[in-house]
Amino acid sequence: MIPERLKKVLKDFKEGKIAEEQVITLLHDLPYEDLEFAKVDHHRVLRHGFPEVIFGRGKTCEQILEIAEALLSKNPNLLITSADQKVFQELGSRYECCQYHSNCQALTVVREPLQGGPGKIGVFSAGTADIPVAEEAVVTAQFMGNQVSSCYDVGVAGLHRILSQRALLKSCNVAIVVAGMEGALPSVVGGLVDLPIIAVPTSVGYGASFGGLAALLGMLNSCSANVAVVNIDNGFGAGYIASLINRRR
Amino acid sequence: MIPERLKKVLKDFKEGKIAEEQVITLLHDLPYEDLEFAKVDHHRVLRHGFPEVIFGRGKTCEQILEIAEALLSKNPNLLITSADQKVFQELGSRYECCQYHSNCQALTVVREPLQGGPGKIGVFSAGTADIPVAEEAVVTAQFMGNQVSSCYDVGVAGLHRILSQRALLKSCNVAIVVAGMEGALPSVVGGLVDLPIIAVPTSVGYGASFGGLAALLGMLNSCSANVAVVNIDNGFGAGYIASLINRRR
Amino acid sequence: MIPERLKKVLKDFKEGKIAEEQVITLLHDLPYEDLEFAKVDHHRVLRHGFPEVIFGRGKTCEQILEIAEALLSKNPNLLITSADQKVFQELGSRYECCQYHSNCQALTVVREPLQGGPGKIGVFSAGTADIPVAEEAVVTAQFMGNQVSSCYDVGVAGLHRILSQRALLKSCNVAIVVAGMEGALPSVVGGLVDLPIIAVPTSVGYGASFGGLAALLGMLNSCSANVAVVNIDNGFGAGYIASLINRRR
Amino acid sequence: MIPERLKKVLKDFKEGKIAEEQVITLLHDLPYEDLEFAKVDHHRVLRHGFPEVIFGRGKTCEQILEIAEALLSKNPNLLITSADQKVFQELGSRYECCQYHSNCQALTVVREPLQGGPGKIGVFSAGTADIPVAEEAVVTAQFMGNQVSSCYDVGVAGLHRILSQRALLKSCNVAIVVAGMEGALPSVVGGLVDLPIIAVPTSVGYGASFGGLAALLGMLNSCSANVAVVNIDNGFGAGYIASLINRRR
Amino acid sequence: MIPERLKKVLKDFKEGKIAEEQVITLLHDLPYEDLEFAKVDHHRVLRHGFPEVIFGRGKTCEQILEIAEALLSKNPNLLITSADQKVFQELGSRYECCQYHSNCQALTVVREPLQGGPGKIGVFSAGTADIPVAEEAVVTAQFMGNQVSSCYDVGVAGLHRILSQRALLKSCNVAIVVAGMEGALPSVVGGLVDLPIIAVPTSVGYGASFGGLAALLGMLNSCSANVAVVNIDNGFGAGYIASLINRRR
Amino acid sequence: MIPERLKKVLKDFKEGKIAEEQVITLLHDLPYEDLEFAKVDHHRVLRHGFPEVIFGRGKTCEQILEIAEALLSKNPNLLITSADQKVFQELGSRYECCQYHSNCQALTVVREPLQGGPGKIGVFSAGTADIPVAEEAVVTAQFMGNQVSSCYDVGVAGLHRILSQRALLKSCNVAIVVAGMEGALPSVVGGLVDLPIIAVPTSVGYGASFGGLAALLGMLNSCSANVAVVNIDNGFGAGYIASLINRRR
Amino acid sequence: MIPERLKKVLKDFKEGKIAEEQVITLLHDLPYEDLEFAKVDHHRVLRHGFPEVIFGRGKTCEQILEIAEALLSKNPNLLITSADQKVFQELGSRYECCQYHSNCQALTVVREPLQGGPGKIGVFSAGTADIPVAEEAVVTAQFMGNQVSSCYDVGVAGLHRILSQRALLKSCNVAIVVAGMEGALPSVVGGLVDLPIIAVPTSVGYGASFGGLAALLGMLNSCSANVAVVNIDNGFGAGYIASLINRRR
Amino acid sequence: MIPERLKKVLKDFKEGKIAEEQVITLLHDLPYEDLEFAKVDHHRVLRHGFPEVIFGRGKTCEQILEIAEALLSKNPNLLITSADQKVFQELGSRYECCQYHSNCQALTVVREPLQGGPGKIGVFSAGTADIPVAEEAVVTAQFMGNQVSSCYDVGVAGLHRILSQRALLKSCNVAIVVAGMEGALPSVVGGLVDLPIIAVPTSVGYGASFGGLAALLGMLNSCSANVAVVNIDNGFGAGYIASLINRRR
Repeated sequence: MIPERLKKVLKDFKEGKIAEEQVITLLHDLPYEDLEFAKVDHHRVLRHGFPEVIFGRGKTCEQILEIAEALLSKNPNLLITSADQKVFQELGSRYECCQYHSNCQALTVVREPLQGGPGKIGVFSAGTADIPVAEEAVVTAQFMGNQVSSCYDVGVAGLHRILSQRALLKSCNVAIVVAGMEGALPSVVGGLVDLPIIAVPTSVGYGASFGGLAALLGMLNSCSANVAVVNIDNGFGAGYIASLINRRR
Repeated sequence: MIPERLKKVLKDFKEGKIAEEQVITLLHDLPYEDLEFAKVDHHRVLRHGFPEVIFGRGKTCEQILEIAEALLSKNPNLLITSADQKVFQELGSRYECCQYHSNCQALTVVREPLQGGPGKIGVFSAGTADIPVAEEAVVTAQFMGNQVSSCYDVGVAGLHRILSQRALLKSCNVAIVVAGMEGALPSVVGGLVDLPIIAVPTSVGYGASFGGLAALLGMLNSCSANVAVVNIDNGFGAGYIASLINRRR
Repeated sequence: MIPERLKKVLKDFKEGKIAEEQVITLLHDLPYEDLEFAKVDHHRVLRHGFPEVIFGRGKTCEQILEIAEALLSKNPNLLITSADQKVFQELGSRYECCQYHSNCQALTVVREPLQGGPGKIGVFSAGTADIPVAEEAVVTAQFMGNQVSSCYDVGVAGLHRILSQRALLKSCNVAIVVAGMEGALPSVVGGLVDLPIIAVPTSVGYGASFGGLAALLGMLNSCSANVAVVNIDNGFGAGYIASLINRRR
Repeated sequence: MIPERLKKVLKDFKEGKIAEEQVITLLHDLPYEDLEFAKVDHHRVLRHGFPEVIFGRGKTCEQILEIAEALLSKNPNLLITSADQKVFQELGSRYECCQYHSNCQALTVVREPLQGGPGKIGVFSAGTADIPVAEEAVVTAQFMGNQVSSCYDVGVAGLHRILSQRALLKSCNVAIVVAGMEGALPSVVGGLVDLPIIAVPTSVGYGASFGGLAALLGMLNSCSANVAVVNIDNGFGAGYIASLINRRR
Repeated sequence: MIPERLKKVLKDFKEGKIAEEQVITLLHDLPYEDLEFAKVDHHRVLRHGFPEVIFGRGKTCEQILEIAEALLSKNPNLLITSADQKVFQELGSRYECCQYHSNCQALTVVREPLQGGPGKIGVFSAGTADIPVAEEAVVTAQFMGNQVSSCYDVGVAGLHRILSQRALLKSCNVAIVVAGMEGALPSVVGGLVDLPIIAVPTSVGYGASFGGLAALLGMLNSCSANVAVVNIDNGFGAGYIASLINRRR
Repeated sequence: MIPERLKKVLKDFKEGKIAEEQVITLLHDLPYEDLEFAKVDHHRVLRHGFPEVIFGRGKTCEQILEIAEALLSKNPNLLITSADQKVFQELGSRYECCQYHSNCQALTVVREPLQGGPGKIGVFSAGTADIPVAEEAVVTAQFMGNQVSSCYDVGVAGLHRILSQRALLKSCNVAIVVAGMEGALPSVVGGLVDLPIIAVPTSVGYGASFGGLAALLGMLNSCSANVAVVNIDNGFGAGYIASLINRRR
Repeated sequence: MIPERLKKVLKDFKEGKIAEEQVITLLHDLPYEDLEFAKVDHHRVLRHGFPEVIFGRGKTCEQILEIAEALLSKNPNLLITSADQKVFQELGSRYECCQYHSNCQALTVVREPLQGGPGKIGVFSAGTADIPVAEEAVVTAQFMGNQVSSCYDVGVAGLHRILSQRALLKSCNVAIVVAGMEGALPSVVGGLVDLPIIAVPTSVGYGASFGGLAALLGMLNSCSANVAVVNIDNGFGAGYIASLINRRR
Repeated sequence: MIPERLKKVLKDFKEGKIAEEQVITLLHDLPYEDLEFAKVDHHRVLRHGFPEVIFGRGKTCEQILEIAEALLSKNPNLLITSADQKVFQELGSRYECCQYHSNCQALTVVREPLQGGPGKIGVFSAGTADIPVAEEAVVTAQFMGNQVSSCYDVGVAGLHRILSQRALLKSCNVAIVVAGMEGALPSVVGGLVDLPIIAVPTSVGYGASFGGLAALLGMLNSCSANVAVVNIDNGFGAGYIASLINRRR
C-alpha cells in the first residue's frame, strides 16, 4: 500500500539525485494525481462518521446480498433501504442482530451501536399514507444512534392534532416533517417552533399532485424561513441530515 | 325586433297555407338557428342576475371608456377590473356614484344597489402582498350586494392569527381564501370550519413559485375536502362565485 | 376524559391557593397546549356536519376494514371511496345496510340517513368514460342526504345534448360538471345558468391530455366566472363541497 | 444561369469523350449536389403558389425594408407580419398599393391580386382580445385571394352567440377558430358543422393560462374530431393553411 | 316523437286562443329549450356526413359490443378504434362484412360503402414504429370512402427516402404526416409541396421525448406554414379531418 | 390586555355561580378560541429567538419605511431584504447603526447585537454571479450573531478551487452552498465533509436553466445524502436555517 | 440497377432526338426526383462508415429476427440494441460470431471487424445503476472498432474516485460520461481535462429526478464548456458520436 | 510562489529529522489540501489549451473591464461574449488588436494567434434570426485558431438550400448546426454526412417554442445518431467543443 513511486522520488532526493525544484515540480500535480493510497478512502466511516448504506432501489436481491457481505466484512453496521423480505430471509439467517423494518422496507445490522447526538429528533407525518417515508427517516436516525420521537397523522386539515404536539416539538433539536398532497405541514410546524425543519415531500396523492411535485413546490415556497427540503420520498436523506444536525449540538 | 320570418310562418299556418307538419319541420332547426331575437340575450342581467363587467386587463383606456358608456346606457351598475387611474378620471367626472378602489384597481358605478344573499362572505389573505387580489374579491362581492368581512395577513407561519379569527369564520356562509407562495391557508381554513372554501392562488412569490403554480397545485391537492379553486390572481371570479353561493341560502 | 390538570387548577383557584393572575397565566398557553380533551375532536361530525370517510386509494383491504370497524363503532354512517369488491364482501356480510356502488367503487353504510340541503344537486359529465368520477360525486352527495340528478354524455361536441338539459340545470342549486380531454363543458354550463359550478377534470384522454392536465387548465381558465375547480378525478371532493353549498340555502 | 458543368458533361458524352457509365456516375450524386440552378428555387411562388412573406417579429425596421425591396423587385405582391407603423411609413410612400392593417400589424402590397379558392373562409374568435390574431388570419387569407367572413366575440360563455352564426358557419369551406383562455370554442364549432377547423390558441389570459398553453392543450384534446391546431398566436399559419384547403375544392 | 307541447301552441294560435305575440314569446326560449325532438339529433350522419365511431380505448369488450349492436341497428357502417381481437371474434361472426385491421387495432363494418372526395390522401410515416398510428389514419380515410396512398419509413435521417416520394406527394390533395421522436418530417414535407399537411405526433421515443411532447412541440413550431397538428397518436382524427378537406375539392 | 371574559368565568366559578363542568365546557373551545391575549404573540422574538424581518420584494419604499419604524419602536434590531438605496437614505439618516449591504441589497439596524451559535457558518458560491444570493445568506447569519466565513467562485468546473478550501470547510458547523446553472457544487461539498449542507439554487444561467429550475432539480437529486434545499435565490432562508442549526451545538 | 429512364434520355440526346436544353430541363427536377438508384442508398455503410443497427425497443422478437436476417445477408456486421435473450438464442444458434452483452441487452454479430479511430474512448459512469447505459456506449464504440476504457462508480459524492482516474482521462481522445440523479459528473470531468465530453443523462433516480429530466438539465447547463449532451439513456448515440469524433484524429 | 511548508518537509527529511513514513503521511492528505501552489492553476491555458473567456451576460461594463485588464496582463488573448459597445470603446482604445463582432456582441483581443486543428469547422443556421448564436460559434472557433465556413438560412422548409451545401458539409471535420423553432436541421444534416454534429437550439420562435424548449427537445430526440446538443443559445459552447473535436484529428 505504500506508494512506490513516491518513495523513489524521496529516496532520489535524499541521495541528491534530484533537486528540490524537481521534487516540487513532481508534487505539483498531486492535487489531481492518483497516489494509489487514495484507495484507502473507502474508509468512508472515518471521513463521514457514518457506515455504508446500500440503496436497494433497482438492485436485485443477489446484488444487494453480495454488496452487503462485502461491507459487513469490514464494518460492524449496515443499513439497507428498499430491501424486500427475501433479502432479510438471507441476511437474517446469517447475522443475529439483523432486523427488518417492514413498514419502510429497511434492513439494519447493528453490531456496535453508534453514538448519536445528545438531543432528540422528531419525525412528524401528515397522513397515514406518508408513514413508510417517515419510518425510513426514523430507522435511519435511530441507526445513527439518535433518540427519535415520531408522531403521525397530524396533517393541517385537523389543526388540533399538530397543536397538541407542541410539547413534543419543543423537546426536539430538529424536526423531520413528512407530507404528501399539498405538503403544508412543514410550514405550520416551522411557524410553531424555532427548530431547523427538514421537509420531505411524498408522492402520496393523485391527479394534480403529479407524483409529489405539488408537495415539493409547496415546501420550497414555505412562508416559514426555517424549512429546508429533500427529494420526494427521501426519508433516508432526511434522517441522515437530521442526524448530522443533531450531532452538532 | 320582432322576427319577420317567424311571423310569416305563423301567418301562413293560420291562413292554412302551410300544414302543421311543415311548421314543425321549420321549427325543428330552431335550437341552432339565429332567430334574430337571440340578440336580446345581451340582457345578461336577466339570465345571470348580474350586470356587465369589463375586464380591463389588456384593454386600452379608450376601449374601456367606450364599452363603459355603452353598458351604462342600458344598465344602472358597472364593475371594471384592472382599471387604471386614467379611466377613473374620465368616468368619475361623468358619473357621480363612480368609485375607484385603488388597492385592487377596480372601478364601480352603482346607481341601483343590488340585493345580495342573506349571509356574510369572509375574505382572508395569507400575506400583505396578496391583498390586491383579496380586495378584488371584496369589491366584487360587495358590488353584488353582499355583506363582506375581510381579514388579512393570517398566513400559516403564525397559526394564532387565523385561529383567532374562528368566530369570524363561523359567522360566514362562504369563505374566500387568498394565498401565494405555498398556498396552504385554504387547507387550514377548510379544516377549521365546514364552509365552502373558494381558494385563490396568487402569483406572489419567487423562484420555485413559478408565477403562482406552487400555490395553485397546493390548493388543488388540499387535504380539506371543502376547497375549490379558481385561476391564479382571479379575485373577481372568487367574489363572483361566492356571491352565487351566498345567494343560494 | 375530564382533564385532571385543569380540574386541579380550578380547585386550587377556588380554594384560594392560586391567584387569578396565575390561572390566567396557566391558561395563557392553552391555545397550543394538548389539553387531552383535544382528542375528543374525533367527533368530526360535530365540527363538520359530516361523518368520517375512508379514502381507500393506496390502503390494503385489511387496513380499510380495521379503520371501518373502528369508525362504525362510534358513527352510524360511513363512506369508503376506491374500495374494491373484497372490502364489500367483508363489510356487506356484517352490516345489513352496507351498499356497494360498483360504477365508482364506493361503499356506503347508512344506518341513520343524513338530512341534506333543501335544493337539488346536478351532476353532469361530458363523456361516458367520465362516469366513474361523476358517480363518486353522486354517491357522496346522496350519502350527505341530498337530492341528486345526474345526466351523462352531454359533452360540447354535440351541443344539443347539454342545451336540452336546461330545465334540469335551472332546477338545481349547484352543478357538478365532470369532463376529461379539453374540459370545456363547465364553461358552457357556466354560461347557461347562474349557478355555482364545481368543475371536476378527469384523467380521461391520451397524448397531450397529460393525465388530466389539459382539462384542469381549461377549467381554471374558464371564461365563465362561476366555475371553481377541484383536483383531477376528485369526484368525492366535488360532491362534498356541493353538499356544503346546498346546505347553505 | 445554364449550368456550365452539366453542359460540358453532355458535350463530352455526345462527342464520345466519356462513356454512358461515366455520365451516370457523375449524375449519381445529383440528388444531393448543388447544380447551381438550385438557386432558381427562390421562385417559391411557382412551387408553393404563394408569394414571399416577411415575418417581422424580431427584425429591425431596416432589415424588413431591405428584404421588402428585394422581394418587391421580383414579385408583384408582398405580405409582412408584425410590422410596425414605421415600416408602413417608409413602404407606403414608395408603393401606392401598400396597405397597413393596424389591428394586426400586418402590411400588404398587392399589385396583381391573387386568385383564391372558390369557397369562403370563416374566421371566428372567442373574445375581443383575440381579434389581432384573428385579423392576421383574415389578412393572410384575403391576400391569397380568398373570400373571408369574420365574426368575433362568440365565446362559449354565451352560447347563443355562436349558435346564431350557424348559417354563416355552414356557408364556409373551412373555419379558422381563434381562442385564448380555455380554448373551448373550436370544439363547439367543430361539433356544429362538418368543416375542417383550423384552431388557433392565443396567449390571451393570465395565471394558469401559461402564455396560451391551456388553450393549446384544450384544442389538441378536442372531443370534436375535425379540429387541427397551429401554434399559439399563429394567425398567419392558420390563414395560410386554410387558403390551401379552400384552393382544393 | 312529435312534440305535443308545440302542437298545442300552434293549435291554440290557429284557433285564436292565443295571439301572435304570445306565440313569439313562447318560442323566444327555444334556442335553449329541450323540444324533445332534439333527440333526433342522433342522426349524426346527416349533420356530419359521417357515421358513428366507437373509441375503444378504456371501454370493455362488453361495452363496445353493446354500443356496436345499437349503432349497427340504425347505421349501415361502423368504425371501432382500439378494438382488440376479442371484439372482432364476436362481431366478425355476426356481420359478414366485418373486417379487422390488426396493425392498428381498428375494426370496420362496411355495408354501404361511403363516397369520399375526388382526390387522394397521402399518409406518410417517419419510422416503422409509427405505422400503427399511420394505419389508423389510413383505415379511417378509406372507411370514409377516400383513395389513400401510404408510404412508411421515410424519416428525415435519410432524406433521399422522402425526396424519392415527391411524385406521390404531388398527386395528393392533402397529406397526413406521422412522426415520433423529434417530429421533423411534417416540416420537410410541408416545404416540398403546397398541400395542407395534417401532422400527427406519436409517442414513439424515449427519455426526453416525454411521451410524444417533443414531437408535438416540434410540429407546432414548424417553419413550414402549411402544417396543422392533431393530438399525440391521434391517427383517427388526422384521417377524419383529411377526409373533410378532401371532400371540399 | 387581561381577558375580561375569562376573568368573569373564573369569578363566577369561585362565587359558585357556575359549576366545574360548565367551566370545563367553556374552556373546551379554547384550543381554537381567540383569547385576545393571543395578540401578544407579536413578540415573535420570544418564540423564535429572532427579531422581525421585512421582505422588501414587491413593497414600495414608503411601505417598507412605515413597517420599519413600527418594528424599530419595539425591537432593537431589524433586517430588510431587497431594500434599495432610497430606503437606506431614509433610515440611515435616522438610525446611526443602520448599515446597507449593497452587494445583496440588504439593510440592517443592529442596536443590541445578537448572540449566535458557538460554531462557524461557511458560505460558498459556485460563480461570481451567485454572490448576491450568497451575501444575503452571510448578512442574515451575521445579523443573527454568527461567525461567518465565505468563499466565492469555487464551482466544479475547476475542482482545485473547492478542494483547496477543505480546511475551511472542516472548520464549519454547517455550510451554505450557493450555485446556479447545473447546481453541482452542493453534491461535491457534501461529499467532502460530513456537515449539514444547505443548498441554495440561483436563477443564474440562461436557456435550459429555466430560471433556476435546473439547479433546483440538481440539488434535490444530490447523490450526497447530507444536502437539503431552499427556494431559488433564497439566501435569507439559508442564512436563517443555518443559524438555527448552528445554535443547536 | 442502371436507371433506364436516364439511359434513354442520354441515348436520345446522343442520337440528336432531343436538344441540350431539353436534357437540362429534364435534369432540372433531379434534385428532388426519384432516380430509382436512390434506392441503392441502403448502402448506408458507404455513406456513414457504419453498418446497420436495429433499435430493439418496441419491436417484437419476430420483427427483430426478420430485419436481422435481411441485414446480415448484405452486411458482415450487425448491432442490435435492447435485444432480449430470446433474440440471442435464435441468432446465436445461426451465427457463430454472435455475441450477447447481457449487462446492456445488446447483441453483436461481427464477421469483419471494423477499423476504428487511432485514439481511445473513455466511458465513465457516476453510479452502478448507470452501468447498463454506459455499457451500451462501450459495446457500440467497440463494435465500431475503437479501443475503449471504462470506469464506473466514480460519482461526485466521492471526488477522490474520479480524481484518481486522471491519468486514464488524459489518455483518451474523447470521453463519454454517464450519470443519473443530479448529473454532475460531466461538469467535473469537463473541468479536469480538455477533451470533448459526450454526456449521457440516465433515468436513474426517483422523485424530482422526473425520469432523467434533472440530470438532463444539469448537463445542458454545465459550467464546463466542453460538454455536449445526448438523450436520456441514449448510450448507443453517445458511443456512435464518440466513434465519429475519434475517427477524426 | 514556492510552498514553504513543503520545502520545510523536504529539508527536514533530507536532514534526517523526519522519516520516510512521516513524509508519506504528511503527503497523504495532499489530494485535498491547499498547497498554496494550487493557486497557480489559473494557468488554465496549460491545462485546457485555451485562454480565458469572460461571459459578459449579467456583468456590468466596469466588472468586465476590470477582469479583462487582469487577464490581459497575463494572457496574450481574450474572448468576451455578450459584451456591449461600451466595453469595446474602452478596450478598443487601449488594445490595438481588439476587435468587436457586432452581430454576436463578442469582443476579441488576439495578440498571439492560436493554432487550431487541421480541419475545417462548418457552422450552419436554419434561419436568419439564428445568426447571432451561429456567429458566436464562428467567432469562438476562429479565436481558437480554426478555419471556419458558415452558411446561414438553410432551414428544412426549403430542403434544396441545405442539399446544395453537401460539398461544403463533406469538407468539414465537425459541423455546428444552429436552429430555433422546431430545431429539425441537425437531424437532416446528421443524416447527410457522417460528421459529429454539435446542435445548438435557439430561443427563436414564439408561443409553443417556450423559449427554445421545442428546439431543444427536438434535437435531443434526433433520429440521427451523430447529434449531440448544447444549451439553448449557447453558441460559445458549440464553438468551443467543436474546436476540441477538430484538434483531435
